Amino acid sequence: SGSGGSITATLFPGDGIGPEIAASVKQIFKAAGVPIEWEEHYVGTTLDPKTGSFVTYDSMESVRKYGIGLKGPMATPIGKGHKSLNLTLRKELGLYANVRPCLSIPGYKTRYDNVDLVTIRENTEGEYSGLEHQVVKGVVESLKIITRQASMRVAEYAFHYAKTNGRKRVSAIHKANIMKKTDGLFLQCCREVAEQNPEIVYEEVIIDNCCMMLVKNPALFDVLVMPNLYGDIISDLCAGLIGGLGLTPSGNIGDNGLALMEAVHGTAPDIAGKNKANPTALLLSAVMMLRHLNMNEQAEKIQSAVLKTIEEGKYLTGDLGGNAGTTEYTNAVCEKL
Amino acid sequence: SGSGGSITATLFPGDGIGPEIAASVKQIFKAAGVPIEWEEHYVGTTLDPKTGSFVTYDSMESVRKYGIGLKGPMATPIGKGHKSLNLTLRKELGLYANVRPCLSIPGYKTRYDNVDLVTIRENTEGEYSGLEHQVVKGVVESLKIITRQASMRVAEYAFHYAKTNGRKRVSAIHKANIMKKTDGLFLQCCREVAEQNPEIVYEEVIIDNCCMMLVKNPALFDVLVMPNLYGDIISDLCAGLIGGLGLTPSGNIGDNGLALMEAVHGTAPDIAGKNKANPTALLLSAVMMLRHLNMNEQAEKIQSAVLKTIEEGKYLTGDLGGNAGTTEYTNAVCEKL
Ligand SMILES: CC(C)[C@H](C(=O)O)[C@@H](O)C(=O)O
Ligand SMILES: CC(C)[C@H](C(=O)O)[C@@H](O)C(=O)O
Repeated sequence: SGSGGSITATLFPGDGIGPEIAASVKQIFKAAGVPIEWEEHYVGTTLDPKTGSFVTYDSMESVRKYGIGLKGPMATPIGKGHKSLNLTLRKELGLYANVRPCLSIPGYKTRYDNVDLVTIRENTEGEYSGLEHQVVKGVVESLKIITRQASMRVAEYAFHYAKTNGRKRVSAIHKANIMKKTDGLFLQCCREVAEQNPEIVYEEVIIDNCCMMLVKNPALFDVLVMPNLYGDIISDLCAGLIGGLGLTPSGNIGDNGLALMEAVHGTAPDIAGKNKANPTALLLSAVMMLRHLNMNEQAEKIQSAVLKTIEEGKYLTGDLGGNAGTTEYTNAVCEKL
Repeated sequence: SGSGGSITATLFPGDGIGPEIAASVKQIFKAAGVPIEWEEHYVGTTLDPKTGSFVTYDSMESVRKYGIGLKGPMATPIGKGHKSLNLTLRKELGLYANVRPCLSIPGYKTRYDNVDLVTIRENTEGEYSGLEHQVVKGVVESLKIITRQASMRVAEYAFHYAKTNGRKRVSAIHKANIMKKTDGLFLQCCREVAEQNPEIVYEEVIIDNCCMMLVKNPALFDVLVMPNLYGDIISDLCAGLIGGLGLTPSGNIGDNGLALMEAVHGTAPDIAGKNKANPTALLLSAVMMLRHLNMNEQAEKIQSAVLKTIEEGKYLTGDLGGNAGTTEYTNAVCEKL
């Protein structure tokens, strides 16, 4: 929260094209009269002397204090052994669920229309345990860890999300026919939560079959919840259905409603600073942020201005087939507000 | 090999619709004058007293003896703790690579045309180790095992396949940014084999990005090679691009050229015995078998008769939108030979 009826949110513009697309969000929020003040922090490839980490102490404190943040793309520090900053943030802030609404953009034609689903990914464990070792020369193993605590938490979030967003169905994605114990525990937790939420239809779909169904007919799905790696795979697959990571918003949820929304595309160093970046993914992530704060009216207004701008097709960035700059696209959105 | 210039191959019709689609293959092979004699064995949900397994000793001996086989769908025996028969066969016969050519079928319209790629899946280890246990209550783990031996073997097969099938590129699919040791070893092996095959272009693609690229533009890929679970997921995704498992052939490769081709769809008990099953996946798997035996002329002849029948669209089974029976479809293919 902030002063004068306004809310303060943390902003991490990030590396590469990050500052440009973050500027676009700030301009559009201002034009829409959104009562949010940004507290900006740099998180990126510079080391913090206080923590010895690439993620500064102050930046983490900021998200913890305000409980809400928006983040642009971040490069992974160069050199051996550096952990991805995305993973560091997930861990530091306890961001246990990654949420990606995947909605067809009317003005951007893909092979699919009417995609309208949401992937909810367990964000902290599974194949991402980091526990690996060589057993003997030529034989290595990785541990996949599934806990009841993390599985219950993400399952509960998925059903909560479904109920509060007018969704009808939750599909748990798994490979419990092979990983009977780990994915079995994940399913067990989903079933328990499903029983407490009889108004939501619950089903279980094996991941290979799920991917086949998604490419054949994504309209079969509503909310999907799954362990970490399957979520990594399926959320990108679904982004592909509607056009790619440049158009897909993403949000990370932690305890006590803490949320960090993010553009999940790369830093695009080749076009950084050239006024060529497409800010759509960060903009739609900012819209998710507004909805998370129950500022639904402003969320709707901005989302519809973005979609109209794309549909109109006059001021599109290069990746969308146009030749407008980031600033022209941003101005076009502002005019529609 | 068999008598009188003919070759003997093992045939497992399987359960459910298996016998009907196997009959279709036999009829078409006869009509095409393919010099193959079938040695038929039942593998399915009946227990073998000799081995205490659902897979009979004689049936395994048959594949080992002839080195080549074709298999229909098999149900998993009912009851707790029974292993999938597919997994049992892979293990018993040392079928280390699963190969799935994924080619658009001109007569069957999907969202994609010109799909022409091949997935090659490591078939024996990885997440399929079966090693899982509860660490403490509420915490379970599964082991993913990657070995140099199995990775080299499948990488070598992938490059061999590429070279002998006029393919230009091999993409290794991985998540080595997270599973640095296991997927790292897999990549290491692929790189070594790539270096020995400089005429084939080699690249590495992270699995989440790969799935996004596949749904956006599958023409970007040629041959894909990957660890077990990624292969399970991506091969089904790719089958979805061209219409599903009812249209996709599959082959399993073992040592010394041993090969067991298979339809990977289910047993469809609801339509079994009703002359409604679509034999295409098993037929195209039989075509793969012919190519494996270097009977390329007959392979071409049968494949083109199958594709023409589908393109013509007069005698299609229900799943393809027609109302012909398995026998009418089969007769239509025979007439085109
Ligand atoms: C960059 C990588 C570590 C990350 C992941 O695997 O989670 C990314 O793919 C994502 O989905 O955010
Ligand atoms: C049935 C199942 C055990 C099997 C697998 O996971 O390998 C199947 O999905 C396949 O791809 O053959």
